[in-house]
Amino acid sequence: MLTRIDHIGIACRDLDAAVEFYRRTYGFTDVHTEVNEEQGVREAMIKINDAGDGGATYLQLLEPIRDDSPIAKFLAKNGEGVHHIAFGTDGDVQEEADGIAAKGIRVLYDSPRRGSMGSRITFLHPKDCGGVLTELVQAAKPAGH
Amino acid sequence: MLTRIDHIGIACRDLDAAVEFYRRTYGFTDVHTEVNEEQGVREAMIKINDAGDGGATYLQLLEPIRDDSPIAKFLAKNGEGVHHIAFGTDGDVQEEADGIAAKGIRVLYDSPRRGSMGSRITFLHPKDCGGVLTELVQAAKPAGH
Ligand SMILES: [Co+2]
Ligand SMILES: [Co+2]
Repeated sequence: MLTRIDHIGIACRDLDAAVEFYRRTYGFTDVHTEVNEEQGVREAMIKINDAGDGGATYLQLLEPIRDDSPIAKFLAKNGEGVHHIAFGTDGDVQEEADGIAAKGIRVLYDSPRRGSMGSRITFLHPKDCGGVLTELVQAAKPAGH
Repeated sequence: MLTRIDHIGIACRDLDAAVEFYRRTYGFTDVHTEVNEEQGVREAMIKINDAGDGGATYLQLLEPIRDDSPIAKFLAKNGEGVHHIAFGTDGDVQEEADGIAAKGIRVLYDSPRRGSMGSRITFLHPKDCGGVLTELVQAAKPAGH
């Protein structure tokens, strides 16, 4: 079951500047930074609040580390801004995706890939989701545990 | 202080179809619908999870009710998709906005307007916020009470 909004993914050109913007403007200081080579990004997860399911809700700032990464292509086409939204599941993300695929929604990965902080993730096709690129997240540490 | 992601605002052409998409695809059934004449929208707040500050996090689906509403213009330019993000404050939204304005961020309203479910809201200029149209929300029922 999807039990929370896990994060909002935001494309940016300069990760350090974006992290500093959110710190200075709003006082958000709980930041985890990592590189995801497979996704072609350097990213920062800014924790905004705990969620009632035992997980949390984040902003995910994404800076491309190579020109052929999806985020680089998004920036070239759209400029900086919201790239995707992500729901957190309390179960297995592949089972969640299979159930959604059975309703006719296209799932973009054959099997889950590595997301932020050791999570397992997959994506749904934005054309099947009202124009919203939608990610499903299974946190490394299950919600509520 | 901003204590939660209050909602993600999503522009859609057919509100009933969008609500049904989120119900059928993900099982989200906690839906509040209202019309906001001033904003020129019919909208649905779909509650996804409680937030740790006593508030909650929602999807906000927005359908234009007239051609000159900001959401109608967004749809004409971009099609359906994410329109804005919103942070919830535990204090007075105008004080929150004044503090942010003092840091050089443009606030779009001179004074707060009525948002979903009796909230008071204002918006920050997306060009000052990394391409993200950003709303501040003071819930009618204060978080934690
Ligand atoms: Co993401
Ligand atoms: Co809103």
